[in-house]
Amino acid sequence: MNKKLHIFPKKKLANLGQPPGTLIFTGEKKVEKPKITVIDYNEKKLQEKEVKRIEECFSFKDISTVTWINIDGLHDLDITEKIGKYYNIHPLVLEDIVNTTQRPKMEDMGGHIFVTLKMLSYGEESGKIDIEQVSLVVGANFVISFQEKEGDVFNPIRERIRKNKGRVRKMGADYLAYALIDAIVDSYFSILEKFGEEIELLEDELMKNPTTEIATKIYALKNEFIFLRRSIWPLRELISGLERGESKLVKKSTLLFLRDLYDHTIQVIDSIEAYRDIISGMKDTYLSSLSNRMNEVMKVLTIIATIFIPLTFIAGIYGMNFQFMPELAWRWSYPIIWIIIGITGISMFIFFKRKRWL
Amino acid sequence: MNKKLHIFPKKKLANLGQPPGTLIFTGEKKVEKPKITVIDYNEKKLQEKEVKRIEECFSFKDISTVTWINIDGLHDLDITEKIGKYYNIHPLVLEDIVNTTQRPKMEDMGGHIFVTLKMLSYGEESGKIDIEQVSLVVGANFVISFQEKEGDVFNPIRERIRKNKGRVRKMGADYLAYALIDAIVDSYFSILEKFGEEIELLEDELMKNPTTEIATKIYALKNEFIFLRRSIWPLRELISGLERGESKLVKKSTLLFLRDLYDHTIQVIDSIEAYRDIISGMKDTYLSSLSNRMNEVMKVLTIIATIFIPLTFIAGIYGMNFQFMPELAWRWSYPIIWIIIGITGISMFIFFKRKRWL
Amino acid sequence: MNKKLHIFPKKKLANLGQPPGTLIFTGEKKVEKPKITVIDYNEKKLQEKEVKRIEECFSFKDISTVTWINIDGLHDLDITEKIGKYYNIHPLVLEDIVNTTQRPKMEDMGGHIFVTLKMLSYGEESGKIDIEQVSLVVGANFVISFQEKEGDVFNPIRERIRKNKGRVRKMGADYLAYALIDAIVDSYFSILEKFGEEIELLEDELMKNPTTEIATKIYALKNEFIFLRRSIWPLRELISGLERGESKLVKKSTLLFLRDLYDHTIQVIDSIEAYRDIISGMKDTYLSSLSNRMNEVMKVLTIIATIFIPLTFIAGIYGMNFQFMPELAWRWSYPIIWIIIGITGISMFIFFKRKRWL
Amino acid sequence: MNKKLHIFPKKKLANLGQPPGTLIFTGEKKVEKPKITVIDYNEKKLQEKEVKRIEECFSFKDISTVTWINIDGLHDLDITEKIGKYYNIHPLVLEDIVNTTQRPKMEDMGGHIFVTLKMLSYGEESGKIDIEQVSLVVGANFVISFQEKEGDVFNPIRERIRKNKGRVRKMGADYLAYALIDAIVDSYFSILEKFGEEIELLEDELMKNPTTEIATKIYALKNEFIFLRRSIWPLRELISGLERGESKLVKKSTLLFLRDLYDHTIQVIDSIEAYRDIISGMKDTYLSSLSNRMNEVMKVLTIIATIFIPLTFIAGIYGMNFQFMPELAWRWSYPIIWIIIGITGISMFIFFKRKRWL
Amino acid sequence: MNKKLHIFPKKKLANLGQPPGTLIFTGEKKVEKPKITVIDYNEKKLQEKEVKRIEECFSFKDISTVTWINIDGLHDLDITEKIGKYYNIHPLVLEDIVNTTQRPKMEDMGGHIFVTLKMLSYGEESGKIDIEQVSLVVGANFVISFQEKEGDVFNPIRERIRKNKGRVRKMGADYLAYALIDAIVDSYFSILEKFGEEIELLEDELMKNPTTEIATKIYALKNEFIFLRRSIWPLRELISGLERGESKLVKKSTLLFLRDLYDHTIQVIDSIEAYRDIISGMKDTYLSSLSNRMNEVMKVLTIIATIFIPLTFIAGIYGMNFQFMPELAWRWSYPIIWIIIGITGISMFIFFKRKRWL
Repeated sequence: MNKKLHIFPKKKLANLGQPPGTLIFTGEKKVEKPKITVIDYNEKKLQEKEVKRIEECFSFKDISTVTWINIDGLHDLDITEKIGKYYNIHPLVLEDIVNTTQRPKMEDMGGHIFVTLKMLSYGEESGKIDIEQVSLVVGANFVISFQEKEGDVFNPIRERIRKNKGRVRKMGADYLAYALIDAIVDSYFSILEKFGEEIELLEDELMKNPTTEIATKIYALKNEFIFLRRSIWPLRELISGLERGESKLVKKSTLLFLRDLYDHTIQVIDSIEAYRDIISGMKDTYLSSLSNRMNEVMKVLTIIATIFIPLTFIAGIYGMNFQFMPELAWRWSYPIIWIIIGITGISMFIFFKRKRWL
Repeated sequence: MNKKLHIFPKKKLANLGQPPGTLIFTGEKKVEKPKITVIDYNEKKLQEKEVKRIEECFSFKDISTVTWINIDGLHDLDITEKIGKYYNIHPLVLEDIVNTTQRPKMEDMGGHIFVTLKMLSYGEESGKIDIEQVSLVVGANFVISFQEKEGDVFNPIRERIRKNKGRVRKMGADYLAYALIDAIVDSYFSILEKFGEEIELLEDELMKNPTTEIATKIYALKNEFIFLRRSIWPLRELISGLERGESKLVKKSTLLFLRDLYDHTIQVIDSIEAYRDIISGMKDTYLSSLSNRMNEVMKVLTIIATIFIPLTFIAGIYGMNFQFMPELAWRWSYPIIWIIIGITGISMFIFFKRKRWL
Repeated sequence: MNKKLHIFPKKKLANLGQPPGTLIFTGEKKVEKPKITVIDYNEKKLQEKEVKRIEECFSFKDISTVTWINIDGLHDLDITEKIGKYYNIHPLVLEDIVNTTQRPKMEDMGGHIFVTLKMLSYGEESGKIDIEQVSLVVGANFVISFQEKEGDVFNPIRERIRKNKGRVRKMGADYLAYALIDAIVDSYFSILEKFGEEIELLEDELMKNPTTEIATKIYALKNEFIFLRRSIWPLRELISGLERGESKLVKKSTLLFLRDLYDHTIQVIDSIEAYRDIISGMKDTYLSSLSNRMNEVMKVLTIIATIFIPLTFIAGIYGMNFQFMPELAWRWSYPIIWIIIGITGISMFIFFKRKRWL
Repeated sequence: MNKKLHIFPKKKLANLGQPPGTLIFTGEKKVEKPKITVIDYNEKKLQEKEVKRIEECFSFKDISTVTWINIDGLHDLDITEKIGKYYNIHPLVLEDIVNTTQRPKMEDMGGHIFVTLKMLSYGEESGKIDIEQVSLVVGANFVISFQEKEGDVFNPIRERIRKNKGRVRKMGADYLAYALIDAIVDSYFSILEKFGEEIELLEDELMKNPTTEIATKIYALKNEFIFLRRSIWPLRELISGLERGESKLVKKSTLLFLRDLYDHTIQVIDSIEAYRDIISGMKDTYLSSLSNRMNEVMKVLTIIATIFIPLTFIAGIYGMNFQFMPELAWRWSYPIIWIIIGITGISMFIFFKRKRWL
Repeated sequence: MNKKLHIFPKKKLANLGQPPGTLIFTGEKKVEKPKITVIDYNEKKLQEKEVKRIEECFSFKDISTVTWINIDGLHDLDITEKIGKYYNIHPLVLEDIVNTTQRPKMEDMGGHIFVTLKMLSYGEESGKIDIEQVSLVVGANFVISFQEKEGDVFNPIRERIRKNKGRVRKMGADYLAYALIDAIVDSYFSILEKFGEEIELLEDELMKNPTTEIATKIYALKNEFIFLRRSIWPLRELISGLERGESKLVKKSTLLFLRDLYDHTIQVIDSIEAYRDIISGMKDTYLSSLSNRMNEVMKVLTIIATIFIPLTFIAGIYGMNFQFMPELAWRWSYPIIWIIIGITGISMFIFFKRKRWL
């Protein structure tokens, strides 16, 4: 995962010095042409279509059905501006929509609620977490969702709308917005599961054979969680902001669901914190296993050196060439030397056993 | 203990993408067939029976006695749904009941209060903590408790009801709910005691002989407490939520007991925090004892090497084969060498004594 | 100190499963027979006696003088129950009184205030902190104090009452309760002073000669403070609860004294936190001094080995038995070898000087 | 970067003991002569000029256009005093303006709002962060900005005023003040980007080759962030103070922009905290890589010593000069010795392979 | 600095068991005889004198001018008691005044405000921080200041009063009290500067040559900051208590100055926290530099041993005395040995170069 990109929003720099409310697309252009889809429904009717021009959606504004306009691709600022004008969205909100480095937040703008958050997905082939900003503008009878590229976690919701499953068709735009955010929060659970598996693997490896690669992986994992935390933590405030129910756009019947969503978010944040604790524990374990290794190495060295250095000294003594060394001529000197060596060796062995080095 | 399962609720993934309020059983099926028992009582009367079909319990709903329906086994969603319909329980609550990865929480749903928390038990044979989710739905004159499997910590309460001991028969459903939660919180004390014993054992071992196994145990213990904390910490909020007395289902006479329960919870949490501190102290002690060991090993090596390497050098000198080495021919060379060796050895000994290495 | 007992209230387990309000004595029986003393006074009169049966005290209840009943020894549940009945004390309070593992707390029960806290004393001979639970029931004109055994820190107060010193005789039961708590808080200062002395001693030793024993002592001290903190920290809340002045039993004239008491408690807690910081600094110092020692040991080894290993090699060269080694026959070979050895030694010495190893 | 200057405001010492409200310039004199520029505008008119004497600006005070007076250079206390007198600014505010060691803060003085904060810039050539204090006095129709020297981040705003771009010309003095603060907060993003690059470089180096220089850089970087945090953290409070909208000088239309600015500030603070976490992770990585290195060094030593010390002992044995050493005369002794050496070597090799040292 | 005295207020023990409000002097007697000075002033008049007996001051009480009575030396409890009686000061306040181990605090007693805080000064000759308790009793038209000994930081204020500089003569007793506290807070800046210099010195030394002395100094410095923090941190609450303006003794015109003072206090606390961070960073740096040193030592040892041990083995081989060693008789054996030695040496050198050990 490219953590470098995540920590700091480089692209923010693009609109330094611009007047606030200036639309500047700060992400990578991830799709060629924005794709716009509309789903318009109430309990009885359902209409779903892909449109070429954003103006085709505007006719839905004044009828009482719930309209969900989804835009994949943010670089065409023209679309955003037209929506802004037609739906009367504040320029600062539009600026936030196309600036893909927003911190998750919720803004009650009176006529509509603005919500921006991060959709995370785990790129199996790349082994990286893919981050995509999703912004929602929620009005009385419409939800406009902005995504950076095609592909999202909303398909189950689309299915539920199409098949009139659950209560989504019976409820309003606020419930739809809830369902979308809920789908994103649910997807965090999958991400966390991936991390959980990675952590388990690392733990097993760490116990078996602590190498520098594992240290590097732990370090990287720790940084991933710094990033993950940054992306998810603000959700808590965001959802509790919605749940506090101060906007008349959020109906009372939806509040209960928002409370449930809030609980889920807490659960995700809780898991992140627990993982952080575990990772920091792994770091300590790695360090102590390094010390252990060193101890083991030192013991081998010390045992060998402690046994053989004195013996070599003894051998050295009788390798001296003095003319007057009576022992040299003795008949039993050589066997005695071997006996001395044997005794020394055995007593060393006992010494090390007692010190629990062997 | 299988910490891996605990930290992250894998089974949550089962209902990703489902509309909220969909009943999906996310735990392991721990019993073959759910067991349903009913205890119905007031101060004068008592009726206790096991029923086959949940419908048999419904007759108790409309009479003024307190009814405690206990269901062991959550996988039969049919039962949950029928209860939900008959007792008018919100679908989100039903979803939480059968999702065994809930964070402990309390929800005041108006007509009833929903409480979910964790019942922990220490599996003696497995050496693992067994975790079971217990959910309570508390109404004006009924308590419905959902457990994952048979076997619980509620037997003393059943006895008290049967024998009309204490005040339980004189008080309402809210007091029964309190008594059930109190029994669970009390059981945490036993769990903590087990951990306390384990920690004491580890401490003693650590002082005697710090091995890698102990480090691994400390590490595991630390992770256990991360998990324990996650399971118990939210109780604080849960019980203070009940105690705040905003629900009219909680009578004033019960508030005092809830305050007492709150104190117990604080005591449990306090103990967990204290244990965490102690465990983290053990980790430090382990690391410093590793360093100590290393020091000891190094000292032995250094003493041996420092004494014998110079001596071996001296012996090496007189092992040289130069033709003109006058000392070789001297009469007292060899004894003098031994004297030098002796002096060197003694001065080294004094040196090490002074450095407090011996 | 037996930290094992302190951290976790084992005896709590005794009343697991009992209905709340059941009196179960959970401490050790520290006295043979409870000792009951009564002091009854107002500004003019004073009566002090030891009674055999608790009923003898009850006559004081209905007269306007302040009555202080002190009970040393909790195991006679009969006494507690009679008091409870006569003074109309809630069963949960009675349960807390005889359960000696309470967390310090204050409970305003309407007709009386219940306060429980820990009296600590330093057992000179045992080197252990002795912990005793003290509970106070404070009514309009009486204070009943429960202690685990004889001997307390209240003698100066008794003296002040007897000699009509200070204002205690002029004020009511609430002031007496304040005075008792104040005496206990004051005694914490002595405990802290003991610890302060121990820490100073350890610091001095640590600087002189860091041994494993010191590490063990630091570790033990750290755990002591975990325990101390747990015992004293809740006092803050307790006293601020009293001071908030919501109970009509606490007169306005006493509030000022409670505020003063609160300041003292903060001072104690402050000191505990400061000591904790210092102890954790000592731990770091110990670790770094271990590293230092290792460095020193390694330097000695390296100096010796680095000087003598090359020299031994040179000696080894001329110990070889090749037939054609012209140097062996040279006249000045041997002196030259000594010169080489000398030069090598001196340059090594300079090398080590420069590296600041010597 | 000269961290030493930053942490502690030495120059504060200059006005120790002076009566509060005494103007004492505490910074370095960074410009020769203060430069005063005025921009006066409303939606229709624009006037921009540089003035010699501050009095020339005063005529703008009583006309309804927005006047922005910018003063580069604080050492001429005369100017500050005159402005203070004419615009009725509190002496304590004036004192804060010329004291360049202020903590960022906002003060609502009734007739005007006083804001002081830090403008940071990265000196490419010096590799140091340059810090400059900017103070704003915001009135109903004027903004007076005080800077330590020429050169700032306000040029884009000047351009927008000149070219009537964005909404700045349509709005009041409060919006201008917002725009100025926004420009400064935006500039923090550039600073953070610089640090981000530096951190990435260090990370790469750290993985490749952990040297003492890198440790020193990490240490320096950590101190930079201590300083950065100190400079930026108070902004949070500052802006939320403005946004709370209690001053009637801040119009409702500006509040939304201030909320946006607040979000930006949170984002900056968030990034700082994330970087701090990453830097502290780098420190740990450095330490563990040191241990790794040591392990590697020790392994080499141990392998060599363990192989050759026993062999040298064997050679030493047969270098002894005893007269009765039967092996010396044997025909195959020498080849057998080599075989023993070979076997020892190979078994050592296998031993080390198994221990994963090779 | 004698940290031992600071952390724990030993002298507090002196009044254990005394009734509250008992005057007991707990400090060292730092002056022979208390010195009492009075300054009485309003905008027009000024009277300053030193008095022998405290009663001489009492005449000022009932005239409308502001009276500042300063008492240097606390051991004469008679003076304190007389003041207490005449100015109607609560006994608990008097107790706090003479007990020199107070935690800084502010107490609104209705008729007067009581403030106690610490005046710190750096004893150049002793290298120790000198701590002195200053207590202020602030009434409608008087300020009584109590100090432990002569010499304070108030001379600039005396000058300002004498010379009618600044606004002190125009304002009331509350402003005087503010000015006194302000002078003390200002003096903290000088203390911090001293520490700043010490830290800079230590940092430089640490980079150059990390010795045990530096570790000891860092450790001591850390403990100094624990103490400093304890002395200054409560000021925050103290001043914000005054500033909240609930006492009618503090006039509205003074509030602005108190807010300014509050900012200064925050700045001091901020600096303390930043220094603490820096010191803890130094500790880490010291530890990592120890590891570095060890690495360096080990490398030298390993290089020497790895080169010479194998060579010595080769020499040992040909020092053996076997009769049948054909190489011994070969003509070119000896030069070949030298070539082998040369090659081994060079390849080792390359090996170490590659490992970056050289």
